[in-house]
Amino acid sequence: MSYSIGIDFGTSSGRVFLINASTGEIVTQYVKPYTHGTIEKSLNGVELPREFALQNANDYLEVINEGIPAMLADVAISPKEIVGIGIDFTSSTVMFVDETLEPVHNLAQFQNNPHAYVKLWKHHGAQAEADQLFTTALAEKNRWLGYYGFNVSSEWMIPKILEVNNKAPEVMAATSYIMEAGDWIVNKLTGRNIRSNCGLGFKSFWEEEEGFHYDLFDKVDGELSEIVRTKVDAPIVKIGETAGRLSADMAEQLGLDPETQVSPFIIDAHASLLGIGSQQDKEMTMVMGTSTCHLMLNKTQHKVPGISGSVKGAIIPGIYAYEAGQSAVGDLFEYVAKQAPAAYVEEATQLGISIFEVLNQKAEQLYPGESGLIALDWHNGNRSVLSDSQLTGCLFGMTLKTTHAEIYRGYMEATAFGTKMIMQQYEGWQMTVDRVFACGGIPKKNPLLMDIYANVLNKKITVIDSEYAPAIGAAILGAISGNAHATFDSAIQAMKEPVLYEVEPDPTKVERYQTLFEAYNELHDIHGYKKARIMREVSQLATAPRPE
Amino acid sequence: MSYSIGIDFGTSSGRVFLINASTGEIVTQYVKPYTHGTIEKSLNGVELPREFALQNANDYLEVINEGIPAMLADVAISPKEIVGIGIDFTSSTVMFVDETLEPVHNLAQFQNNPHAYVKLWKHHGAQAEADQLFTTALAEKNRWLGYYGFNVSSEWMIPKILEVNNKAPEVMAATSYIMEAGDWIVNKLTGRNIRSNCGLGFKSFWEEEEGFHYDLFDKVDGELSEIVRTKVDAPIVKIGETAGRLSADMAEQLGLDPETQVSPFIIDAHASLLGIGSQQDKEMTMVMGTSTCHLMLNKTQHKVPGISGSVKGAIIPGIYAYEAGQSAVGDLFEYVAKQAPAAYVEEATQLGISIFEVLNQKAEQLYPGESGLIALDWHNGNRSVLSDSQLTGCLFGMTLKTTHAEIYRGYMEATAFGTKMIMQQYEGWQMTVDRVFACGGIPKKNPLLMDIYANVLNKKITVIDSEYAPAIGAAILGAISGNAHATFDSAIQAMKEPVLYEVEPDPTKVERYQTLFEAYNELHDIHGYKKARIMREVSQLATAPRPE
Repeated sequence: MSYSIGIDFGTSSGRVFLINASTGEIVTQYVKPYTHGTIEKSLNGVELPREFALQNANDYLEVINEGIPAMLADVAISPKEIVGIGIDFTSSTVMFVDETLEPVHNLAQFQNNPHAYVKLWKHHGAQAEADQLFTTALAEKNRWLGYYGFNVSSEWMIPKILEVNNKAPEVMAATSYIMEAGDWIVNKLTGRNIRSNCGLGFKSFWEEEEGFHYDLFDKVDGELSEIVRTKVDAPIVKIGETAGRLSADMAEQLGLDPETQVSPFIIDAHASLLGIGSQQDKEMTMVMGTSTCHLMLNKTQHKVPGISGSVKGAIIPGIYAYEAGQSAVGDLFEYVAKQAPAAYVEEATQLGISIFEVLNQKAEQLYPGESGLIALDWHNGNRSVLSDSQLTGCLFGMTLKTTHAEIYRGYMEATAFGTKMIMQQYEGWQMTVDRVFACGGIPKKNPLLMDIYANVLNKKITVIDSEYAPAIGAAILGAISGNAHATFDSAIQAMKEPVLYEVEPDPTKVERYQTLFEAYNELHDIHGYKKARIMREVSQLATAPRPE
Repeated sequence: MSYSIGIDFGTSSGRVFLINASTGEIVTQYVKPYTHGTIEKSLNGVELPREFALQNANDYLEVINEGIPAMLADVAISPKEIVGIGIDFTSSTVMFVDETLEPVHNLAQFQNNPHAYVKLWKHHGAQAEADQLFTTALAEKNRWLGYYGFNVSSEWMIPKILEVNNKAPEVMAATSYIMEAGDWIVNKLTGRNIRSNCGLGFKSFWEEEEGFHYDLFDKVDGELSEIVRTKVDAPIVKIGETAGRLSADMAEQLGLDPETQVSPFIIDAHASLLGIGSQQDKEMTMVMGTSTCHLMLNKTQHKVPGISGSVKGAIIPGIYAYEAGQSAVGDLFEYVAKQAPAAYVEEATQLGISIFEVLNQKAEQLYPGESGLIALDWHNGNRSVLSDSQLTGCLFGMTLKTTHAEIYRGYMEATAFGTKMIMQQYEGWQMTVDRVFACGGIPKKNPLLMDIYANVLNKKITVIDSEYAPAIGAAILGAISGNAHATFDSAIQAMKEPVLYEVEPDPTKVERYQTLFEAYNELHDIHGYKKARIMREVSQLATAPRPE
């Protein structure tokens, strides 16, 4: 029997999975919360700016060093049977390392320098640099900008590199290599210095045919091209290929066989597509957790305003993968649950159920539109299609009789409408959506939400039974690297997660939601564009200091 | 010593007060909740339309018949010392009575006919008739329409009369007189058939110089003028005059002296002005309870769009009284308190304080604008200046960190911004506001709210120590009728309620609130006009039946 290890590096913990490479079955798993978590408020006692989100790379190694041996101790499997390791990682989570791949935050002189630490995907300290990249690209009508949805996010790698070069040139001077944390783990495992095409393509202004966009970099900053050429550029390993064998040292340290192959890292949400078996043209997958990522496969490259990127072969070889997203989905529901009135909490206690169960039971009794509410789910900004992280949440249609369950359902519907905006954007730019998949932690737990989505989108939704789709996807890449399957396709078909259920739209509800969506669409446009100005002025007051 | 009785007929109860006519001191009071309350859901087991709000007039008599004798039994005062009775009443609360002043709902054949019952001020069954009056008046550029703010409310008397004539002609046929419930009480006490100029002027398209607007009535409905001429029109008694002596029967029944004078009824909120001593040109008074009424005194009559009416001598002889209002103030805060998350309720329990105290303590810690929130306080529609009862509440600027205390403060600020819109409307139509009074149940209990209002309005606010200003105002009119004072002015000066405190604006907060108000103003206009359409479509769904 052959096995593959899939390692899923999330925002707050790493999870190591041992997967049966023939069936996709999870043999065992090990979870390791990051020792330092996300470093947001202060670093070694010094307060950090509000927009900072850092991590300590040593935590990632702990996941591997503890997780793999612990897992092996748990099962009666010979290391020789483990043919590959695959890694999925948050992105763009950017690391600055020295010649020996040591993170520069481990150097004595930089231990208190926040710019030496891992810049987590949700670090927003590089907004000025992102704006500079965007306006430069726009001014010169850069031919690539459309492939990123006519948009530059401060979460991407190049703005973060510019931020460090601008704010902490001493850190940049001590840095030999800059890479995605996912690439770093692969490099630590293999002892090589390579880059995955997935991370570079989505987050670093790189593409397979033309490489890095140096002519744009030159116009943005005199030093940027040189930094990218010497510190970022490295041999590319594409999804479906192997990054190489485990180094002898690492094999010994982890108790694995030195023949074990390591695949290039894949972005966590993107790995889900492999895990659930979406590999065809015109399939859209919603990876639903704290936020939602909308991944779309298409044979052709289109320039779609408001999406976050489109990269060839970044998930499935030879096919374009498009990415879009909503910034608050599970997070928003958690927030609403936490705000529930005392009577709801009491009811939950009396019935011995969770507050979510109380909310879902009540929300289920409501018929589309009965509450008179429409919400804009921008409590954490709007990623797609407005690409404005400063937008804020709105609620319309309240009366003195509005209940918390109605508000909860209003937000569920708002996230569905937000997804419909994204799907319409794909469809408006010549990409029909033939099939919709849902995966991640939420769809399994919340069938009412999936029912709402089916009716709002007017599409059948295929819900996949997996909270661990990214890890399964990573393990599939590990198995492919380790030659456990003859082809990429057969690996996916053998190892993918099963379908949990399918939801069909109900025509009477579809019609009601169409009316509600038209109202949402108008409010979206009014507040996405006009209010972007009105409420931006209000936000400025929110962060202005109090007078003495 | 001389005394006056003030009787305050509210929405859910009547309160009888015995007041010292020299000092205004409350000697004793008696509260009687209406036996039938507000009849909203069903009448004698038959379901009522959603927009209905009826009362049973027998409940009003109970207030007097129980309250006055009970009160007299309580004190050592000779009935001869009680010189007058004043009545304040909700309006337009409309009654249909027979030749003997018997409410037609007491006739056997009409006991199950909702149209025979008292149509409470907030009965909204006459919207179609109000619309018909408005469009007719607008089409012919009726010269009076501007005095009602270019607006006809379904809460006024004439639409309610048309409703009964359209829907229940048999009730109309059995009706000899139609009058405000306040007039009915006065007529029952005196045995006369008179009308107060206050009710007619604000609610019935009547004015001192020209009487009823028969030429408009003729264009609206062929029968309306005749109905008004024979059933509504009657001798007018103006505020400051006397309606006459108590009838011998009533004097005996109540244990009062037959020389006791009865003043014409005054609308409840309007009576507050007398009770707090606002009687000068350019004074604005906010009567703050479940809703807020904004009364403005001015020597000249102006046509102000969006206000509810302007009547000469309706409160203070010889001076115009303007009325505007906000439909949900105390009601909105009650709603927010009821929605408080469990953690707030727990905190209140632990500290042994009310949920309002917890909310106020937390809201007080916030500085203007820090929450990033703006709200539109239209949870019960917008009375002034948009005159659109179908508008709904909105909340803008939410994030995943928004707290319930921030939302509470946001709504407090929204009601202040709403008041500023009304004040600006008065000022925009040539009426300077020189002084602002606040009275009613809320200002005394909520100094933080008054602080917010002072800074939003940028005006000093004089808060009067009285929840009972309407009853005091009614008692003042009773004392004037009974000749306890030489002049109208001296009665007010002697009996008015004392100042509780004054709040001055703070220039740094004023400046912040000016920025926030500009945002509010834009959102008000977008959603008051544009959204009126978007959300009206959503509201239609809210009331549409579910499919079978």
